[in-house]
Order: sequence, then structure tokens, then C-alpha cells
Amino acid sequence: MGQTITEKIFSEHAGKKVHAGEIVRVDIDMIIGNDITTPISIRAFEESGAEKLARPDNFSIVMDHYIPAKDIASANQAKISREFAYKHDLKYFFDEKDMGIEHALLPEKGLVIPGDVIIGADSHTCTHGALGAFSTGMGSTDLAFGMITGGNWFKVPETIKVVLTGKPGEHIYGKDIILEIIRILGVDGALYKALEFTGDAIGHLGMDDRFSMCNMAIEAGAKSGIIAVDNITEAYLIEREEVNGGLRAKPKIHYSDDDANYCQVITIDVENLSPVIAYPFLPSNGKPVEQAVADDLKIDQVMIGSCTNGRIEDLRIAAEIMKGKRVAKHTRMIVTPATQKILMQAQHEGLMDILIEAGAVVSNPTCGACLGGYMGILGDGERCVATTNRNFVGRMGARTSEIYLANSAVAAASAIAGKIVDPRDI
Amino acid sequence: MGQTITEKIFSEHAGKKVHAGEIVRVDIDMIIGNDITTPISIRAFEESGAEKLARPDNFSIVMDHYIPAKDIASANQAKISREFAYKHDLKYFFDEKDMGIEHALLPEKGLVIPGDVIIGADSHTCTHGALGAFSTGMGSTDLAFGMITGGNWFKVPETIKVVLTGKPGEHIYGKDIILEIIRILGVDGALYKALEFTGDAIGHLGMDDRFSMCNMAIEAGAKSGIIAVDNITEAYLIEREEVNGGLRAKPKIHYSDDDANYCQVITIDVENLSPVIAYPFLPSNGKPVEQAVADDLKIDQVMIGSCTNGRIEDLRIAAEIMKGKRVAKHTRMIVTPATQKILMQAQHEGLMDILIEAGAVVSNPTCGACLGGYMGILGDGERCVATTNRNFVGRMGARTSEIYLANSAVAAASAIAGKIVDPRDI
Repeated sequence: MGQTITEKIFSEHAGKKVHAGEIVRVDIDMIIGNDITTPISIRAFEESGAEKLARPDNFSIVMDHYIPAKDIASANQAKISREFAYKHDLKYFFDEKDMGIEHALLPEKGLVIPGDVIIGADSHTCTHGALGAFSTGMGSTDLAFGMITGGNWFKVPETIKVVLTGKPGEHIYGKDIILEIIRILGVDGALYKALEFTGDAIGHLGMDDRFSMCNMAIEAGAKSGIIAVDNITEAYLIEREEVNGGLRAKPKIHYSDDDANYCQVITIDVENLSPVIAYPFLPSNGKPVEQAVADDLKIDQVMIGSCTNGRIEDLRIAAEIMKGKRVAKHTRMIVTPATQKILMQAQHEGLMDILIEAGAVVSNPTCGACLGGYMGILGDGERCVATTNRNFVGRMGARTSEIYLANSAVAAASAIAGKIVDPRDI
Repeated sequence: MGQTITEKIFSEHAGKKVHAGEIVRVDIDMIIGNDITTPISIRAFEESGAEKLARPDNFSIVMDHYIPAKDIASANQAKISREFAYKHDLKYFFDEKDMGIEHALLPEKGLVIPGDVIIGADSHTCTHGALGAFSTGMGSTDLAFGMITGGNWFKVPETIKVVLTGKPGEHIYGKDIILEIIRILGVDGALYKALEFTGDAIGHLGMDDRFSMCNMAIEAGAKSGIIAVDNITEAYLIEREEVNGGLRAKPKIHYSDDDANYCQVITIDVENLSPVIAYPFLPSNGKPVEQAVADDLKIDQVMIGSCTNGRIEDLRIAAEIMKGKRVAKHTRMIVTPATQKILMQAQHEGLMDILIEAGAVVSNPTCGACLGGYMGILGDGERCVATTNRNFVGRMGARTSEIYLANSAVAAASAIAGKIVDPRDI
């Protein structure tokens, strides 16, 4: 019987041919913690009596949620990870000195490799599947088990094949495609499944779109999202290799067999898709932008950022729309680049000047307002268009606030208009 | 009897010759509120039954302390000022769309004019005296009185004349001079007095140094700090006029008479001054940097920013020291430019690249960590070198944390060393 790419990754790691449903114990190529989740892992690690990390070069801590510290509690919480990193002389510890959101920073650093098995104590760890890796979010104690033993147990997931056909039209991005998929599947439609994105549309999507899609696989309940390596992935890896003076490991490239077994196949023609807006309070609540325009939705805040859509392409899209324009009087706009490299690249391309002159405030890289952390929290009854991944009740602040998830073009155009508009109309 | 510059400003406003100790009611040229203090003023304004601002074009709100909102409370607090600004169609309302710390932003915008009487509900309102204005901090209800009536009552302050002689040596800045003055006077040595900075050393100090000095006049308890207009001030004003397409009003330039009456005169030769470090927990606790070096003070955090020292000169000084170097392993560094213009200028000059590549995180303009707001709060027992203005117990976070106030060169050099060092030694 043929195998999916995900089954092949687990087979390669297990040293035997495995299929969905089998339980395997495999070594993990990269374990990722952040400033919120790692302290719990560290406590479990230390309570176990372990003294050393089983595989120190396969462990990373990325401080991205609450630093530079927003309050005393975050400062003290950050200290736990800092002290652990210093004590164990961690190779991959990223704090204020190299800030970035974990799911953007690790691929950028050449630390995510095709064929990897990756776990992270953060639900959006599935992002890394865009590079042909198996990557999933786990709890902090699962992370500790990985820190202590170097591996963990997995039930190889079944796969839902998502076939994307056609060429995306103007202002249709990975974000719209994944919002449409989540709309179709629902927020629990892919529970413990891998979402494998295939089809000729993939060739029209750059890495930033792909990261955005895999990032939100979890919003359909998926265990992981994955896209097989192609020439776009390869070009990205070559660039990462050049920038970082090498990759963490040699890529192990797998492709699903033609006769692989899928538990479900869905096909979407992206050719005629409209920009999708996920209404409150679920990411599955997608509606075409035309509906949002008809609903005349005035907005208080726009946020472009997060591990979903805080990449250079997002800033380019926003800057192109906002050049020479000004954020609406009653609206504010926050731009949060995902990493320092993205921030500097945007500076060099003149995007920051355009955005700031248009009235946006550009923050340092951080998860920031996306999770209701800081840097743009919503007050009572405020409405926000965000390029982030979740629009749950109170996710970005007050319980009575509302989040509309959208792509960066919708977000930028809406900031100028002060209400949700269709970027294709401006 | 001759008059001081401060007495002349009040005389001009009162329409009669007045001297220190007299009580006058004068119109106010600029009333300044921020996102923390204005909501209280607005409540008092509305409770008074007032419907309109007496002089709307002499009132400004600068949202600089807690926006982009750090939490729900700040978001709701910000809403009060936003709604007031929209309702009264305020000409001078600055939020995310034009971010900056009030004491840096207003001069930059050409809204602070020599000869002005200015009040602000923020203690560091005295900053504006660097442009030959009388400027002082008041409470929120005093602000409301100004909003309702357009003016307020003042007791014309006595003046302490500070004569600064000589040319400052390498890495001696306005910050060192004012820390030395506060060391001499003590934190209550200038209560309800104007501090008038004079002497040939002033000619060696640019506007950024002068703002920094007047900013900290309050740390000696002074009502105001003031420096008479000279060719450096004039060049600054011409630039502001060009950038902003005009100034808010025509400058009214005053100079103290030779026979003016001073309650005290202190003279400081700045020629042989060392960089001054104010030890915890008072700004008057200044010691020469040599002492701090001998004390081998390891540091967890460096902050360059605030209304005291978050200006372009500070970023230039830091970048020159940090170019090609890297923040020490156990230390983190936060750079918070005071306004968007400063941020963009620093980008254009390549300073941001240097600072970020050295391992600093650069935030959006904000008061940020200086007042323990957000963006770099200190945890238990942490030690920080900051270019800010106050090192009180718990000012930037935990009660057991420590702040050492210093100039930007000391801060940058110390970030690289991981402990307090003398920038003249590197």
C-alpha cells in the first residue's frame, strides 16, 4: 500500500514502514518552547531529575509572547527560560537579542528542514509543515518528555488531501484559501488528521502563503498541515542556507505515493474565490468580502502581523495599498513584523516609511496583540480587522470586542476606509 | 529691578510687569494631556458643564503611555480621550497615527514656541523650557481648569541660576550635566523654583542635550527649567518651521536682565566632569562612572529611550559605539525612539540596522518601560542601565529591581560589556 508524505516521514524516523493509526516512538528533530510554555516544561524536566537535554541541538526556546516584558509577571516568567538557556548553554535561544515569532524565526534561521519531525508547545507549530516537515503543537509536559528523552510517541495521523486547482485571482492569498478550507471543514473537521495541500494552485503560492496556510491547519482541528517540497521550497531553502551559512540538517524529501490512502479528499477551485473574511467568533465563520462590504462594518483597529501574516509579503501588500494614503480618522493600525529580518528588510525596501507615513504604528517583532498579549489590545465593543489566526471571544482583549480575520490586502484597504472594504475595488 | 526670563514671560502674558512671588492669571499657550491623565481632566471638564474648550487650538492630547494598548484597561482608558478628541474635532490629537512621547513630539511638530506658557498633566512637561518657554507639570484637574477657562493661576517662580562653564569632554552630555546639578541640589533643592541654565557651556550643547536637561529639572523639584534662545535654538525652530510648514505661533524671545534677581546661583565647570551615573533609588544619587566601574555592576537590561534621552542624538551615539559589536550574553537591550520621525530618521541613517544587528530590540515610540508601563519591565532583582529620568524603587518593575540612570554612551557601552563601563575606555 502506498504512503502519504506524513507516513513516509514517520517511517523514515521509525526505521520501518508505518501507516496511519500506528503508534511509533521517534526522535524529534526540533523541539520548540516559548516564554509562556517553556517554564512549565523546565519544571517538569527538573522534577524528573534530568540534568542534561537528551539532544541539546534539537531544542530551541523562542521568547516571543511577552518580551520585552509587558509587566513584572512576564519579566519573572522570562527569567526562568533565560536561566535555563544560560545553564545549558543553549545553541538555539532567541530573546530580545534576536527577536521573532517562533514560527517565522525558525524557518528563517534554517532550523526547519524538510522531512523533520517537529513539536512545539504552541498550537501554531503546524506552520512548519509548509517546508515538507511533520510539525505539531503539544503540551508543555510532552515537550519536557522530548527534552528528557529526545523523542516522543505519536499516532501516525490519517491525511485529508486538499486539492487546490486554478490560479488565485487578484488579492487572493494563502490566507483566503485556508479560511475557505476551514469554512468547509469546520473547526473540528480535521481532528488528529494531517491536512496535505496539493494541486496545481500550490505552484502559484509563495512560501509566505504556504506558511500562512499550514499555520491555520490547527484551526480546522488538524494535527498538522503539510506541503511537499517543490522548486519554490527549494529556492527558499537555498536562500536560507546562504543567509545562515548552512541549514541545521540535510533535507529528507518525501512525496505522497499516487496510491496513498486518504481518509478524505476535498477539492477547491481557487480561481473564482473572493477574499474571505472570518467573522466572529470562529475561524470557520468565513464569508466572502462582498458580504462584509454589504454589512458596512466600521472598524476601530487593524492589525497586520502574527505568525500567520506578519511576513515580508504582507508588508509589501499593505505598503502598496497604503502608499500616499492615510489611515481613517477613527481607525488605528498596528503593524507587527514577525522577525527582525523582516523588519529590516521592510525598512530597506521603504515599506516602513510608507506604513508609518500612512499612520500605522510599527512595533518590534512579537506575538503581541494576536493572543491578547500586548501591543494593541481591544477595549469594550471595539472591532478589529486582523491578519491573525483566531477570532475567538475576547482573544485580543475585551469579551465584547470583535475580530474579523482577513488577508493583508483587506486589512490595509480597510484601515484606509475605516470599514471593511474589498481591496479589489480601490 | 531687572527681570529673569521667566518673570518676563509672565509679564508679557499678564500684561503688566511682574516679579517672583506674585500671583497672576494668564492664558495658556499649550495645554497637554496624555492617555493616562486626560481622562481625569475630561471628567472634570464635563462635570463642570462646559461644552466647548475655551481655546481648542491651545490644547493637545498625546497618547504615549499605554498605547498601542497593553491591556483591556488601557484600551478602555484610551477610548475616553479618543472620543473626546473626535467630539471636539481636536486639531492636536496624536495617537497610533502619529506616535511620539509628548515632550519630544510637540517641539518636533512646531507646537512649542519661545515665550509660551505651557502646562501639561505630566511631570516632565518642564522639558519644553529648552525652547525658552515656561513649561510645567500640573494635575489633571488643573488641566481641566485650563480647558474650561483657557488659562490658570500661577505664582511666578523664583529662579536658581545655573552657570555652566567650559566645554564638555568626550561622552559628556546634557544628561551628565543635569544629573550633576541634581546631585548638588538634591531632589527637593529647587522646589517651586525655575532652573535657568546659562553660561558658555550652553553654546556647546545641541537641542537634544538641552531638552534632556530641562526634562529633568523636576527631579530637583523645580517648577520649570529654561534656556534662553540662541542661534542653536533658532536653527532648530527654522527646521521645525520648514518640516511642518510653519510654527504654531510667532516666537516671543526674552532674555534675563543683567540685574535680574536670583534666589541662588550655582556654577559648574563641565570641562572636567565624568559621565554621571545616578545610583538607585534617587536621581540625586549621582556618582562618576569611575565609581560604577569599580563597583563592577553587572546588568540584565539596558534601555535607551524616554522623553529624556530617546532622541536622534542618543541613537547616533549608541549606534556609533555598538557598530559591529554584540550585546553581552546575559544582557538585553531595548531602544525606544521618542517619536516616529526619530525612528524613521534613524532608519534612514542606518542606525536601526546597527542596533538590531548588535542585538537590540527597537520598539515603536512610547513612554514604555521608563514608567513601568510595558516594553521592558524589570523582574525581581534585575538591574538596568537606563537613559530615563527616574530610578525610584520599582519605577520600571519589581520592587527589588535597580535602575542606574546614565547617558546613552554609557548605556550602549554597558550593553556590550554586560556591566557598567566607561564609554571613554572602549
